[in-house]
Amino acid sequence: MSWTLAQIAQHINGQLVGDPDYTVTAVGTLTDAGPEHLSFLANTKYKKYLQYTRAGAVIVAAGVESDSDIQLIQVDDPYVAYAKAASLLYPETKPEAGIHPTAWVHPQAEIAADVTIGPNVTIEQGVIIAAGTSIGPGSVIEANVRVGNTCRIKANVTLCREVQLGDRVVIHPGVVIGADGFGIANDKGRWIKVPQVGRVVIGNDVEIGANTTIDRGAIDDTLIADGVKLDNQIQIGHNVRIGEHTVIAGCVGIAGSTVVGKYCAIGGGTGIAGHIEIADGVQLTGMSMVTKSITEPGVYSSGIPIEPARQWHKNVVRYRQLDKLFARVEQLEKQLKD
Amino acid sequence: MSWTLAQIAQHINGQLVGDPDYTVTAVGTLTDAGPEHLSFLANTKYKKYLQYTRAGAVIVAAGVESDSDIQLIQVDDPYVAYAKAASLLYPETKPEAGIHPTAWVHPQAEIAADVTIGPNVTIEQGVIIAAGTSIGPGSVIEANVRVGNTCRIKANVTLCREVQLGDRVVIHPGVVIGADGFGIANDKGRWIKVPQVGRVVIGNDVEIGANTTIDRGAIDDTLIADGVKLDNQIQIGHNVRIGEHTVIAGCVGIAGSTVVGKYCAIGGGTGIAGHIEIADGVQLTGMSMVTKSITEPGVYSSGIPIEPARQWHKNVVRYRQLDKLFARVEQLEKQLKD
Amino acid sequence: MSWTLAQIAQHINGQLVGDPDYTVTAVGTLTDAGPEHLSFLANTKYKKYLQYTRAGAVIVAAGVESDSDIQLIQVDDPYVAYAKAASLLYPETKPEAGIHPTAWVHPQAEIAADVTIGPNVTIEQGVIIAAGTSIGPGSVIEANVRVGNTCRIKANVTLCREVQLGDRVVIHPGVVIGADGFGIANDKGRWIKVPQVGRVVIGNDVEIGANTTIDRGAIDDTLIADGVKLDNQIQIGHNVRIGEHTVIAGCVGIAGSTVVGKYCAIGGGTGIAGHIEIADGVQLTGMSMVTKSITEPGVYSSGIPIEPARQWHKNVVRYRQLDKLFARVEQLEKQLKD
Repeated sequence: MSWTLAQIAQHINGQLVGDPDYTVTAVGTLTDAGPEHLSFLANTKYKKYLQYTRAGAVIVAAGVESDSDIQLIQVDDPYVAYAKAASLLYPETKPEAGIHPTAWVHPQAEIAADVTIGPNVTIEQGVIIAAGTSIGPGSVIEANVRVGNTCRIKANVTLCREVQLGDRVVIHPGVVIGADGFGIANDKGRWIKVPQVGRVVIGNDVEIGANTTIDRGAIDDTLIADGVKLDNQIQIGHNVRIGEHTVIAGCVGIAGSTVVGKYCAIGGGTGIAGHIEIADGVQLTGMSMVTKSITEPGVYSSGIPIEPARQWHKNVVRYRQLDKLFARVEQLEKQLKD
Repeated sequence: MSWTLAQIAQHINGQLVGDPDYTVTAVGTLTDAGPEHLSFLANTKYKKYLQYTRAGAVIVAAGVESDSDIQLIQVDDPYVAYAKAASLLYPETKPEAGIHPTAWVHPQAEIAADVTIGPNVTIEQGVIIAAGTSIGPGSVIEANVRVGNTCRIKANVTLCREVQLGDRVVIHPGVVIGADGFGIANDKGRWIKVPQVGRVVIGNDVEIGANTTIDRGAIDDTLIADGVKLDNQIQIGHNVRIGEHTVIAGCVGIAGSTVVGKYCAIGGGTGIAGHIEIADGVQLTGMSMVTKSITEPGVYSSGIPIEPARQWHKNVVRYRQLDKLFARVEQLEKQLKD
Repeated sequence: MSWTLAQIAQHINGQLVGDPDYTVTAVGTLTDAGPEHLSFLANTKYKKYLQYTRAGAVIVAAGVESDSDIQLIQVDDPYVAYAKAASLLYPETKPEAGIHPTAWVHPQAEIAADVTIGPNVTIEQGVIIAAGTSIGPGSVIEANVRVGNTCRIKANVTLCREVQLGDRVVIHPGVVIGADGFGIANDKGRWIKVPQVGRVVIGNDVEIGANTTIDRGAIDDTLIADGVKLDNQIQIGHNVRIGEHTVIAGCVGIAGSTVVGKYCAIGGGTGIAGHIEIADGVQLTGMSMVTKSITEPGVYSSGIPIEPARQWHKNVVRYRQLDKLFARVEQLEKQLKD
């Protein structure tokens, strides 16, 4: 796909410093781009590359100029503008509509006319799939699931019974939504199953990364609100609720019944205990350990980064002696006072 | 499904305070239930909701009464009783028996007459599946696997060659059992594969959560004993052995050859090193880091929960200076002694 | 399969102390082996078992002898030699060549004559699969993927569009390679998608464990070099580059654009931040937290192992008071100086 710089500048509401008729066909990084590429500079740390780049044009922040004769498109937010320009150059292609002959679709499923059902897909009874959606190869859509319009369910996804998806939801391969939550009761030493009868209800414009799992509710539903973005290999327990436009990086685990607010950003590898509440606007850095509710927005962290192993060893020993050290200091204070 | 309170009270061995002929058809939480719902009160923290609930009846502990005219069923253990009552109201439905026309079953597999094989399933040579079991859509059962009776293998599960399952095993979507363990040997800088020739042997009444992985043994078998319950996204290395009725929450990793005892409870996100032993009755809180054997039952913990990022930063710096602090205190003690 | 000790000794370049015509048919551990088994002793910690073992023969280090009449094969590196001998006894069997009738292969895919395509596989347009490779049941190979020769793609794997695999790559079930990276830009409070247009390029002799995910590049490619071995449930973000012969244990997460060197060994559960560099030859122990680049080879660690819960509680409290403790010690030093 080929676009002129004038078309791109207009699309991203930018100021073009260059030839309006010059065309680009792809994106590239500042260091690797050639004349056919559009690039961008979002982090001023990389400004030095601007004079060397061979890119056809570069999206930059308003006010950024170059000593070289590189063509620029100046915008308010270069990364957002890049995202929009890249979407022009790489329009999402919906696979051809129709039900693949190797797919199995229950006669009592309602599939909109222009939906794409890929090879080896299974669609069970009572499923409703709205217009413009595609279901990737090998995916399984269990009974009574409802999928909104223009969703992209990729390959080998499992949507368990009664899961509800909004519109424009993107689900990457290997995701499992609506499996039973970890509900067990201890009956005199033996664990018995607590039936998991809630659903998973997912809003509009949600994206869910590869091999992420979201459990169905125990009684009420598990809820993922509009605009939430989840990375890969996240585990979300039963009855968790995640607020609008919250983003969660890979390998996060959230235990059952926890409520995460709106506009939160949760770093990779974080663990969040069950039955707590995280306020709107909370940011957690990577590998945070959250055991209690967080009532105020702000940035929170935990974990002690690596040290050379020998030093780490020493510090762990010291850590375990902390209580004694406090006693010794108290003793010193007492002696000095006397 | 509809049951009278008398029937439910009898099933859960409870004392009914209310109309024996009143019927309920579903379960609900105290706050959301209506007259058609059965609810429960297991945690006295929520007792305040008992007077407001609109539930048809509530399962409570013996001795709990209400000021309102709410109907009660008094039992010894309300959560266990709820689990049993919910199982009455939501009986597990086995999919219709038979082999789906889109499934592929090797002619040398032995499938009991009333087994359900779903769409797009693959069953390889030498597989034996006992009565009453169902295999969900898209699942792959490799050569010589043996599945016991009344198992529920959900969608997109992979059971690798020679895996053995007991009876009443439930496996949720995306689970992989019996993939090769991480066995590699360093041959002068290059890693070569160590053949993984053991199996995975799983007992009765085991439940395994979505996208969990259990590796086959290197030489001997990996063993999961009766009654073990595993949550989602757990990784169990080769030759691990897990004792009866142990429960493990999501995102736990257990490295190779480790032995976990009976009746343990392992919190989410915990990591357990290889080649160690965890005694019976050990409880690990979430995100524990276990590097050595645990010889005594009890509760163990590690990890430092989050703080505001600024404070966390300061504490990490202080932590790294601990060794020096000990030296300074020693110096002070010496000075004071002199 | 049956081999004489003479044949095995020759294959692993060992010195046989025993009957050259004696045959073994399987491997076994020192404690469980019988006369038909070949065993090995790699860790001198287990030397005591050598006198009791009933194994037909044992691979040991040069110089190791036994008081009993057990047959030995002495080699330089017993574990490497065991790996090679076990590969003799358990030769990898390639499934029968051919395209299974339930698989769907796009007419514009190029599949070498002796490739095996299993049941319920999907192969999209433009895929190229080289000689001797097998694709397991339920796997999905998206458009324009290239798979080298003698690869083993197991069941229910997803290779997304344009992924490139070298030769002799092994991919275990549930793996997802080439899903979109977590690229989002904040457009006035709403997250919009940044198209992910790079590929994943994987070298020769790479092995990838069950349910691991490797994201495609945002602009340039994500790169996994020759000889890399990845365990299960690892998450590798977009544009990560991993150097030759590096090994990574289970449940590790590596955030976007990070570069990991050659010959590294990364322990299970480790988290590595994005946009950093790890030097060649770095070793990270399990559950390490890496937030900055590592410029020197060596062993690095973090995390504080478990303690009994009561003691842990106390230490966490003490940890949070560290800053005050430092102030108190400073105060004491000042007092003493005066």
